[in-house]
Amino acid sequence: MPRHADDPPLFFDAHLFVCCNRRPDGHARGSCAAKGSERLRDYMKARAKELRIPAIRVNAAGCLDRCELGPCVVIYPEGVWYRVESTADVDAVLERHVLGGDRVAELMLRAESD
Amino acid sequence: MPRHADDPPLFFDAHLFVCCNRRPDGHARGSCAAKGSERLRDYMKARAKELRIPAIRVNAAGCLDRCELGPCVVIYPEGVWYRVESTADVDAVLERHVLGGDRVAELMLRAESD
Repeated sequence: MPRHADDPPLFFDAHLFVCCNRRPDGHARGSCAAKGSERLRDYMKARAKELRIPAIRVNAAGCLDRCELGPCVVIYPEGVWYRVESTADVDAVLERHVLGGDRVAELMLRAESD
Repeated sequence: MPRHADDPPLFFDAHLFVCCNRRPDGHARGSCAAKGSERLRDYMKARAKELRIPAIRVNAAGCLDRCELGPCVVIYPEGVWYRVESTADVDAVLERHVLGGDRVAELMLRAESD
């Protein structure tokens, strides 16, 4: 839904949600936490601080419902999704997308992969 | 950060995050879970289904860092924040903001209240 002209300014310029849902081992859909997302979330928070990125917030979230594609991260307000499987992937998302304003094409979730 | 012209379409039209962080009783900042946010999140999920709102997702989130103003909900992609204290507040946000495309002015968090 579009913003209204008199909406308050965005509270965070970059609000990142890392799926930290954990399902039992062997569940058909798998889960992001079972693929290491909690550790990656911790790293992302620390790395964002280290890079001194202003007005960013990295949050854990419940199941984002794209389990098969995870570990999933969604960045708002732009609503761009990534699969983040390693600390190198986290670095790429923070440095190229958040700081650089670019996209990390090779990690991006696309509609056609759903 | 603005969307790029070739970004994939939004995966959810309305993506709501309910802070479900819980701090120990007596913590100076308080916490949203201690103010009942988990129950309100459950109600919001059920109510969204009951209202048959398409392309909506209601997620729990870790601490959204506006603890004193909680229980907090943020709606993306528009990035509008609400204090939601009751099931009536949840109904107002779903019906007036999400379905109606309006704002629930009396519940909205504003920069000047931070």
